[in-house]
Amino acid sequence: MSTIREQAERAKAAKPKLAALERAQKDKALGAVAALLRARTADIQRENELDLAAGRTAGLAPAMLDRLRMDQKGVEATARAVEHVITLPDPVGSRGPMQRMRSGIQVGRQRLPLGVVAIVYESRPNVTVDAASLCLKSGNTCLLRGGKEAAHTNRVLGSIIGEALAESGVSPDAVQIIPPGDRDGVRELVSLTGLVDLAIPRGGEGLIRFVVEHARVPVVQHFLGVCHLFLDEGANVEMARALAVDGKARRPGVCNALECLLVHAADAARLLPPVARALLDEGVELRGCPRTRELVPEAKAATDADWGTEYLAKIMAVRVVDDLDGALAHVGRYGSNHSEAICTEKLASSERWLREVDASCVLVNASTRFNDGGELGLGAEIGISTTKLHAYGPMGLESLTAEKWVVIGGGQIRG
Amino acid sequence: MSTIREQAERAKAAKPKLAALERAQKDKALGAVAALLRARTADIQRENELDLAAGRTAGLAPAMLDRLRMDQKGVEATARAVEHVITLPDPVGSRGPMQRMRSGIQVGRQRLPLGVVAIVYESRPNVTVDAASLCLKSGNTCLLRGGKEAAHTNRVLGSIIGEALAESGVSPDAVQIIPPGDRDGVRELVSLTGLVDLAIPRGGEGLIRFVVEHARVPVVQHFLGVCHLFLDEGANVEMARALAVDGKARRPGVCNALECLLVHAADAARLLPPVARALLDEGVELRGCPRTRELVPEAKAATDADWGTEYLAKIMAVRVVDDLDGALAHVGRYGSNHSEAICTEKLASSERWLREVDASCVLVNASTRFNDGGELGLGAEIGISTTKLHAYGPMGLESLTAEKWVVIGGGQIRG
Repeated sequence: MSTIREQAERAKAAKPKLAALERAQKDKALGAVAALLRARTADIQRENELDLAAGRTAGLAPAMLDRLRMDQKGVEATARAVEHVITLPDPVGSRGPMQRMRSGIQVGRQRLPLGVVAIVYESRPNVTVDAASLCLKSGNTCLLRGGKEAAHTNRVLGSIIGEALAESGVSPDAVQIIPPGDRDGVRELVSLTGLVDLAIPRGGEGLIRFVVEHARVPVVQHFLGVCHLFLDEGANVEMARALAVDGKARRPGVCNALECLLVHAADAARLLPPVARALLDEGVELRGCPRTRELVPEAKAATDADWGTEYLAKIMAVRVVDDLDGALAHVGRYGSNHSEAICTEKLASSERWLREVDASCVLVNASTRFNDGGELGLGAEIGISTTKLHAYGPMGLESLTAEKWVVIGGGQIRG
Repeated sequence: MSTIREQAERAKAAKPKLAALERAQKDKALGAVAALLRARTADIQRENELDLAAGRTAGLAPAMLDRLRMDQKGVEATARAVEHVITLPDPVGSRGPMQRMRSGIQVGRQRLPLGVVAIVYESRPNVTVDAASLCLKSGNTCLLRGGKEAAHTNRVLGSIIGEALAESGVSPDAVQIIPPGDRDGVRELVSLTGLVDLAIPRGGEGLIRFVVEHARVPVVQHFLGVCHLFLDEGANVEMARALAVDGKARRPGVCNALECLLVHAADAARLLPPVARALLDEGVELRGCPRTRELVPEAKAATDADWGTEYLAKIMAVRVVDDLDGALAHVGRYGSNHSEAICTEKLASSERWLREVDASCVLVNASTRFNDGGELGLGAEIGISTTKLHAYGPMGLESLTAEKWVVIGGGQIRG
């Protein structure tokens, strides 16, 4: 039997104990994790230095090294994130409204953990602690498979978590680090049907596609964020400008940033020039359709390849569409089911947008950058799903649970 | 390109139109389906006779032929089931409570269809109509792949549905019959990532395992119903007797029937003899552990193979367990996450049972036979899931939808 399978067997065996933990005990364990992280800051930094040195030798890009770094500030931020999870409500065991049926039974639903969650991730070692604390709080056991580049840091973080769990009376099998290796290990981990209940890949598109390709267990994931903003006829031009600049120029490298601006043809002459001006002033390169370029001479010519492209940079595609239907058709064809916004003053346009756009977050008169676990009130986020099964959008603690039916009767039979 | 892939491409292309349909139009189309089914009863019966004749020639068992049969009564029952779906609320577009966040945006969730649902099933041709009407009502397009044994019946039902959709102004691509063939076709259908959003296998364990084994798209399924009833210390003996007989003897062949009775050791002498007597009087064969056989001499000796077995017959395993913990451990090890009941007078036992048992439906003082879409208030059922991802338990119209986040603002940006 492989080591990975053995670890998963142990995780499965620990499921009932984890599921039955009361909130107080889970919060106590999380407090111990935060305290021990702080107490071991020097150890963590030493191990992190080994990873950084190896990364430099291997010629990792500065951005990658930056993500890998866990300095004193990083440890403190990670400990605080754990303490924040303590403040969040425990979803496990919460029972929704009960309904009395004609038969006399009371029927409702009650939350329970998913079971064993496998997280496959790259670079950022704080994911080790974040994922462990969210899984623990929601009563799940987790298997954490980080990247080779963070092997030393993840190992010490894993041993700190294990120690904190043990001293809090929680089985250390609840959080297990899977040692990094080649992708065969990832493939094995996500093939363990009957042992692993859910796999969550976090990282670059290559890793995510690999997991989706080889998984035999359920996966929630997102590949891309190709987000649009549609300026409707009659939109407020000040608002349009603010939403476009916030969505495109503030943090162009994030998945909920805008990639494409759509403008209603009947109002493009009023809306597009000032919005384009503001974007150009922020250093955004515009790539427009022919109608766009008539109104905005500074825009380069867009090619078909620009529609649906995730630039993750200060580049924006711009297209004048005939009307709301044209915008909906463009988003339906080129969107990535992530975040799609409309800027409108019309209730009918708003309601159609909310109903007809198929995306994890559909926004009216608000920046796409609000599609974020914190902004949507989840408290913390373990990932985001752009597929609709199980979860759609940012996943918080509740998305790490399921609902079972509960029935309370007084001896009823069906006969 | 294969025919199956072409059908799935057409189903995908029809998604936005289906998702945008108003309830009135969907209900009108369902009404047309019901009316046309009745008008074409003679056609359906003629095609069904061809399937029945082929089935007799092939030596199908009488129970199989019975499931295959669609006589006048069957057509009428199927049409009524469609009319019942008309009365159910349309989940699509319903928006849950909105919460105003600190940023000023309103945040909530709104239901949308899953997209393209593939149903793979055997024998009963009424599934063709039932699945089509539930998918249509929930705004999904569906690909229906029935068994070879019902090929003629399913084809005529498919053409009736298509005609009814066309005359109601709904794209006939919304409901497509995949012609039966060998299992390569099933394999292809459940491998169409990017086209098929969910696969639901319905039928024997062999079919379900095949789909799970080969699926590349998400699947909800259940294999087995190994359901237990635990008689707690102090349980009401009359109630215990009624629950045991209802669960085991009324319809032993269904998945929510009982397979195993567990009895608290401290009260077994009072509870077990009368409950066993009632089961024996109903013609149930009992297979007991040694402690059971001391109290019930009529019980045969159970072997290890009896724990966890789904008899689907008037046979019941009986085990005396030390206490509630023993019952929970037995259910955790041998249960199939389907339906698990306790008979108890103690609140603490009830709460622990509801919290700690991992099953799609957990019952207190009620028959396991209540784990049924109709009894739980779903109105109609497209399947049942014993895995926790996406759905757990009977799946109604709501389980054919997902929730997207909706944000309504007044121009808010994150900055």
